Amino acid sequence: MKEKILDCTLRDGGLVNNFRFTDEFVRDLYQMNLDAGIDYMEFGYKADKDIFKESDFGKWKFCKEEDIRAIVGENNTSMKLSVMADIGRCNIKRDLLPKKDSVIDMIRVATYAETIDEAVETANYCHELGYETTVNVMAVSKTAPELVAHALSCLSTCKADVIYLVDSFGAFYPNDIQKLTAQYLSYCDAAKAVGIHAHNNQQLAFANTLEAFHCGAQFLDVTVSSLGRGAGNCPSELLLGALKADTNYNLTPILSFIEKHILALREEGLKWGYDIPYLLTGNTNKHPSSAIQFIKDGNTDYTSFQQQLKIS
Amino acid sequence: MKEKILDCTLRDGGLVNNFRFTDEFVRDLYQMNLDAGIDYMEFGYKADKDIFKESDFGKWKFCKEEDIRAIVGENNTSMKLSVMADIGRCNIKRDLLPKKDSVIDMIRVATYAETIDEAVETANYCHELGYETTVNVMAVSKTAPELVAHALSCLSTCKADVIYLVDSFGAFYPNDIQKLTAQYLSYCDAAKAVGIHAHNNQQLAFANTLEAFHCGAQFLDVTVSSLGRGAGNCPSELLLGALKADTNYNLTPILSFIEKHILALREEGLKWGYDIPYLLTGNTNKHPSSAIQFIKDGNTDYTSFQQQLKIS
Repeated sequence: MKEKILDCTLRDGGLVNNFRFTDEFVRDLYQMNLDAGIDYMEFGYKADKDIFKESDFGKWKFCKEEDIRAIVGENNTSMKLSVMADIGRCNIKRDLLPKKDSVIDMIRVATYAETIDEAVETANYCHELGYETTVNVMAVSKTAPELVAHALSCLSTCKADVIYLVDSFGAFYPNDIQKLTAQYLSYCDAAKAVGIHAHNNQQLAFANTLEAFHCGAQFLDVTVSSLGRGAGNCPSELLLGALKADTNYNLTPILSFIEKHILALREEGLKWGYDIPYLLTGNTNKHPSSAIQFIKDGNTDYTSFQQQLKIS
Repeated sequence: MKEKILDCTLRDGGLVNNFRFTDEFVRDLYQMNLDAGIDYMEFGYKADKDIFKESDFGKWKFCKEEDIRAIVGENNTSMKLSVMADIGRCNIKRDLLPKKDSVIDMIRVATYAETIDEAVETANYCHELGYETTVNVMAVSKTAPELVAHALSCLSTCKADVIYLVDSFGAFYPNDIQKLTAQYLSYCDAAKAVGIHAHNNQQLAFANTLEAFHCGAQFLDVTVSSLGRGAGNCPSELLLGALKADTNYNLTPILSFIEKHILALREEGLKWGYDIPYLLTGNTNKHPSSAIQFIKDGNTDYTSFQQQLKIS
């Protein structure tokens, strides 16, 4: 089955700037993804406004139907649109329209293994509403193997179309990804696919995505220039460069977008991408939050940071 | 057999600044490598001063015995020292002392497949002088497979201790590295090892080094913070981070060195490391020189550069 590339620049990149993208950025990103032949574009989170104050974030934290439509109209294209529902931080039963009334095609349910029951229920509910669904089990590098196996077992009988392997902390090496992809696939029947969402803490987001793909993962998450939390994600431009010889993907629109928008974000001072502190949290299998703060504070005392991680 | 990590920061990094490192930088790098447990440290090239004007370069382009000794004394340590002899650009018979009179332990012979006969002769000569030797066949991604096979066949019967797989253009993916490492190993008897020297054009230098290592390569080239030509090399800190759980390597001295010296080089405006133009030359299997110039000129017109590479 052909691979599916999913651009989550707005969703994971939104974690860097609180989802405050200009409409021009979002429109150009949508057009870029269309021109590049990207299969899915994720707009952001479907967050619960009773938990998150709307004025604290840009609109892609909430992904209201009208805000997406203002960019894509009816989206009469072959590219599908997704949003993410984060278990414990969304109110899907209140906020999600039936598929027939929505321009969204896919709901991606993000969960920890501990809340797998709620994730399964949510994915099944979204399926009943008519959506494609995925369940993305986060932080598996920090989760006991029995609990991961239990989560996968629950997912194997749920209605989700895709089970996502998520390297939240950028802690996995390609040989880990090889074993995990095989494990995840072992819980999938012919109707279910595996996806990969990698982080670049150890400069392995691209290599791990390629590894998962070669091991049978079909859904491949990317962001433009790896724009995403902390060390960022698998860069769109690298994956398209690698796949283009055998596919109809087109790298050029992504290069244009980088010229116009990504360089400007860097100029404005937005910080993301591989750096030593992320290597240290990835290498010690820790959440990148302390590294993000360390870099934000302009620190470069790497040996102290290493010491601090050893103690914490 | 235990892996051997070879630091070539001065040699490959010297291609970025014409080998103009301060003595303090070199002394601290030597001490860093000792403290980190690095197995080999490469000082630079043994270049022919009839071809290269000495005043155009720092001293590590030539690696005179007295210059190395000024840093390491007798090098009464367990770390070995290497220099590189670049075929067609060195005069080894004039410039190399017998091993008993030199503090250098290993001569690495760099060659293209086309000059393999001269490389074999040079490696054999260095072996006779008492040195450990490697032959590093460059630009194999651009070399006809029959010519690569011929070169490997010549090397299989020569005196070199190590045959190096070199990804000069950063064009290989991990599955290429897997096949090539197996091929290189098939030309080695028990007395010969395979080495890997990767470049980071597609953010794969670390992943490709790990892949080669898992496939049986024993000599692993690194540079601190990937300091090296163009997109740079496999970063020391990433490889040590990955290996340290099973080994006695120590990451902390490398972090200290980065704090003190690498950040300063970046401040001074020295440019190296992954960037879009290197992705484009790597992806199209081209020498990085045009990308180096593009970045040096401050250009960001990536789509034009892509077009230019397609035509050239």
